[in-house]
Amino acid sequence: MQTTHIEHIGIAVKDLNKAIRFYEDVMGLHCYNIEEVVDQKVRTAFFMAGETKIELLESTSGDGPVAKFLEKRGEGVHHIAFAVKGIGEALSQAQENGIQTIDKEPRKGAEGLDIAFLHPKSTFGVLTELCENKKK
Amino acid sequence: MQTTHIEHIGIAVKDLNKAIRFYEDVMGLHCYNIEEVVDQKVRTAFFMAGETKIELLESTSGDGPVAKFLEKRGEGVHHIAFAVKGIGEALSQAQENGIQTIDKEPRKGAEGLDIAFLHPKSTFGVLTELCENKKK
Repeated sequence: MQTTHIEHIGIAVKDLNKAIRFYEDVMGLHCYNIEEVVDQKVRTAFFMAGETKIELLESTSGDGPVAKFLEKRGEGVHHIAFAVKGIGEALSQAQENGIQTIDKEPRKGAEGLDIAFLHPKSTFGVLTELCENKKK
Repeated sequence: MQTTHIEHIGIAVKDLNKAIRFYEDVMGLHCYNIEEVVDQKVRTAFFMAGETKIELLESTSGDGPVAKFLEKRGEGVHHIAFAVKGIGEALSQAQENGIQTIDKEPRKGAEGLDIAFLHPKSTFGVLTELCENKKK
């Protein structure tokens, strides 16, 4: 797999507006986009920190994946997304290495990226996303 | 606070050697350093992913901070470190904004960086490290 950088860090929060204020007022980052992802039942806020995005995730429904994460683990880092070249091949290589994957094939994610998740059981507790921006 | 990028992501693991194999063989990253930090009771392994390091943390003692984290939360992301300019001022600004900090003053951390931690109670569940490389 050819990993180029950390594309983003997803952080589950209970109150998106309060968390945005922390990252803007204290950490000095600029929130450049707020977006609802209906099928994931989340409202997200994006910040750039160098080449990496901070993606805050607030659940919009009690039965969504972020709601379940918050209930089980509380607020904190939800996933890490690695930018890779050739996501289809990268995912196949992970599967050949015995890694359990959540997605069998890459799919479209936020901001038009191609994405696929590896299961945290296979990745030492870190929900790991692979992503590729094919428009670049 | 002037944040330039994500300096590193600290990940607590039970078995450093197994986790190194995952990040090398599957994620395609290169482990460039393994270091024991005696006062933190951890053995660490470092990888570069773009401008950000992955720092794996294995506890060397049952009563160390990483051992306690693993016992409470299991394997996963332990902290996120943001590179800032002027860490002393950045820490003061955080305190003035009502953020609870673990360190009252910056101190020396791994790789000779000046570091200070913000308490996860004030930072939406993410143990947040500020760091500055004054040699740069």
